Amino acid sequence: MSIFLKDLKSIKPYTPGKPIEEVQRELGLKQVYKLASNEIPFIPTYLSKEILKELKSINRYPEASCFYLKRALAKQLKVNEDRLVFGNGSDELITLTLRVSIEKGDEVIVAYPTFLIYEIQAKAQGAKVVTAPLKDFRYDLEIMAKKVSKKTKIIFIANPDNPTGTYLTHKELEQFFKRIPKRVLVFLDEAYFDFAPSDYPRSLEFLKNRGNIIIARTFSKAYGLAGVRIGYGITTPQIATALNTVREPFNVNRFAQVCALAALKNKEFLSNVVNFVKKEKNYLYSELEKLNVSFIKSATNFILIDFKQNTTDIYNYFLRKGIIVRELKGWGLNGFFRVTVGRHNENKEFIDCFKVYLRTKFRSRKTRGGRR
Amino acid sequence: MSIFLKDLKSIKPYTPGKPIEEVQRELGLKQVYKLASNEIPFIPTYLSKEILKELKSINRYPEASCFYLKRALAKQLKVNEDRLVFGNGSDELITLTLRVSIEKGDEVIVAYPTFLIYEIQAKAQGAKVVTAPLKDFRYDLEIMAKKVSKKTKIIFIANPDNPTGTYLTHKELEQFFKRIPKRVLVFLDEAYFDFAPSDYPRSLEFLKNRGNIIIARTFSKAYGLAGVRIGYGITTPQIATALNTVREPFNVNRFAQVCALAALKNKEFLSNVVNFVKKEKNYLYSELEKLNVSFIKSATNFILIDFKQNTTDIYNYFLRKGIIVRELKGWGLNGFFRVTVGRHNENKEFIDCFKVYLRTKFRSRKTRGGRR
Repeated sequence: MSIFLKDLKSIKPYTPGKPIEEVQRELGLKQVYKLASNEIPFIPTYLSKEILKELKSINRYPEASCFYLKRALAKQLKVNEDRLVFGNGSDELITLTLRVSIEKGDEVIVAYPTFLIYEIQAKAQGAKVVTAPLKDFRYDLEIMAKKVSKKTKIIFIANPDNPTGTYLTHKELEQFFKRIPKRVLVFLDEAYFDFAPSDYPRSLEFLKNRGNIIIARTFSKAYGLAGVRIGYGITTPQIATALNTVREPFNVNRFAQVCALAALKNKEFLSNVVNFVKKEKNYLYSELEKLNVSFIKSATNFILIDFKQNTTDIYNYFLRKGIIVRELKGWGLNGFFRVTVGRHNENKEFIDCFKVYLRTKFRSRKTRGGRR
Repeated sequence: MSIFLKDLKSIKPYTPGKPIEEVQRELGLKQVYKLASNEIPFIPTYLSKEILKELKSINRYPEASCFYLKRALAKQLKVNEDRLVFGNGSDELITLTLRVSIEKGDEVIVAYPTFLIYEIQAKAQGAKVVTAPLKDFRYDLEIMAKKVSKKTKIIFIANPDNPTGTYLTHKELEQFFKRIPKRVLVFLDEAYFDFAPSDYPRSLEFLKNRGNIIIARTFSKAYGLAGVRIGYGITTPQIATALNTVREPFNVNRFAQVCALAALKNKEFLSNVVNFVKKEKNYLYSELEKLNVSFIKSATNFILIDFKQNTTDIYNYFLRKGIIVRELKGWGLNGFFRVTVGRHNENKEFIDCFKVYLRTKFRSRKTRGGRR
């Protein structure tokens, strides 16, 4: 139909990890472990009071400014409130950023492979997507910098990256920024920053020095609030104003606002999550090594597994066992799948099933190269 | 900064009705009546069970497809599921529609004045906004049809309209569609359709006959779910696919999905709301007539008041009394304000305060023409 942008047909819609409810419906399973979407396996139960209080105002529009949340977050980050923009998940920050800056034909640089939404939304906005291949499963900043042209408007950087789990250090990004013209907007997607190690970038310093940066973070991962949808951007007051101009006024629902506010205050939950993930990730690493399965070391709460062959069979095998992992063919990663760190029993079950699968399928096991 | 679209500076961001929390903060008031944002004054309390159950999955992303809600709604509307698209409020449907169809320079026709978001989001998307003035506070379909050019991509029609509260009948829209080329997408915003009278359009028939239509509805008004953010569009499968391609996969949060599903089932709540609004609107009409205040008869849960002079003073007066109404200067309606039907005691308090205001300000009251 002529009303649609021609580019739209070239876009392959994003396929999310299979929801627990869907697997229960389709396979008639009661017990399903979801290790597919990098959610943490804990529920911030301290929220029920906030939620029930907020229910009393469910008929009222939320505060468009996220007033209390904005104040608390600004204080915690030590930035002015006019630098913050809230989104219906940090996904919305990606879309808003593209919407305020892209005119048809402008270029956007994204890694390949990386989080798919950058490319999907960039194309939807009419941008030309320029891809920069990874190097050893890491962002290749050298290549990315070389891809900058006069038409480049935005560079998207997922740090830590999804789905590889690798990260860029402060020094690496610092060097990178020296090479990127200030007119180019750099979108630093820090969805997994809570899990990242100590040499991880202090991005607020870059923002202060350079200006033209959007740092996007989310409450969906380490804070355990994926279901309620809230993320935020930290940027210059000018960019924040632009993003706030085009966002829908009530983009962040009431429950999201109070949950995020409570989450900021509850530091113990966050540190418990981070410690737990670290411990369980080490458990998974050591078990995968025992199985001679290759994987990429991760700065996040998920692990990219280099299965070295078609993943359809093992994906379906896990599914029938009630374990959802993430296939990555749509991401251009054939032969790989991604597993999220779950509860200990879930991780153990994943390993046990994996073990049985490998035994059954490869009775005469070949030696498999373990890449770290 | 050069990264922004040039058009962005010409956009005046949407100013929502003042939230209760804001007035409480700013004026130190405990009791605040909000008659500003066309919310219903009732809380669907039957939701607490659903909400608490959903809290147990708050760490998990919502179902991207709104599976159960979509199935229930399709059944209720008697349409196929592939015709439905859900949004983070029906606002998001407006944005998505523009995003899938507008290229820079395309034209969009909107009434003037009407709901502001059409113009804001159309400009944000780079469209040229062509305005069609109202006639006697109603959409002038004659003028709108005449404004169609080769560049017209979308016509936005709020029915019933906000902020006038007037509506177009089935016959009027039927005639209108005969004059509009099929290549033009017509966006029928039916946010207030639950309140509308019996000769209101059966829009699904238009959709069936014409195709190129998006009917947008919301759970924010009559269903009392403004705080949780959910609306939907009914359209052709082709348009639905396009909208689903560009929306963020998790745009509708978990709580919104279960609340909307419960709301669909709870028909008694809806009919009670509609009956209550009708009764209280009549009360307000008769009291306003006694005060000799002009107003526009409304097919919604709000009333446009023709105050015939600057509204700053009366707006602030109401605010100090703890009553929030809606000024409409930003909408191009100088001398008008909008009041939402509240609980009976709220409506009575509004009338009582209005009475005192008029007495104090106009001791020698002039006869004021009552327009209906």
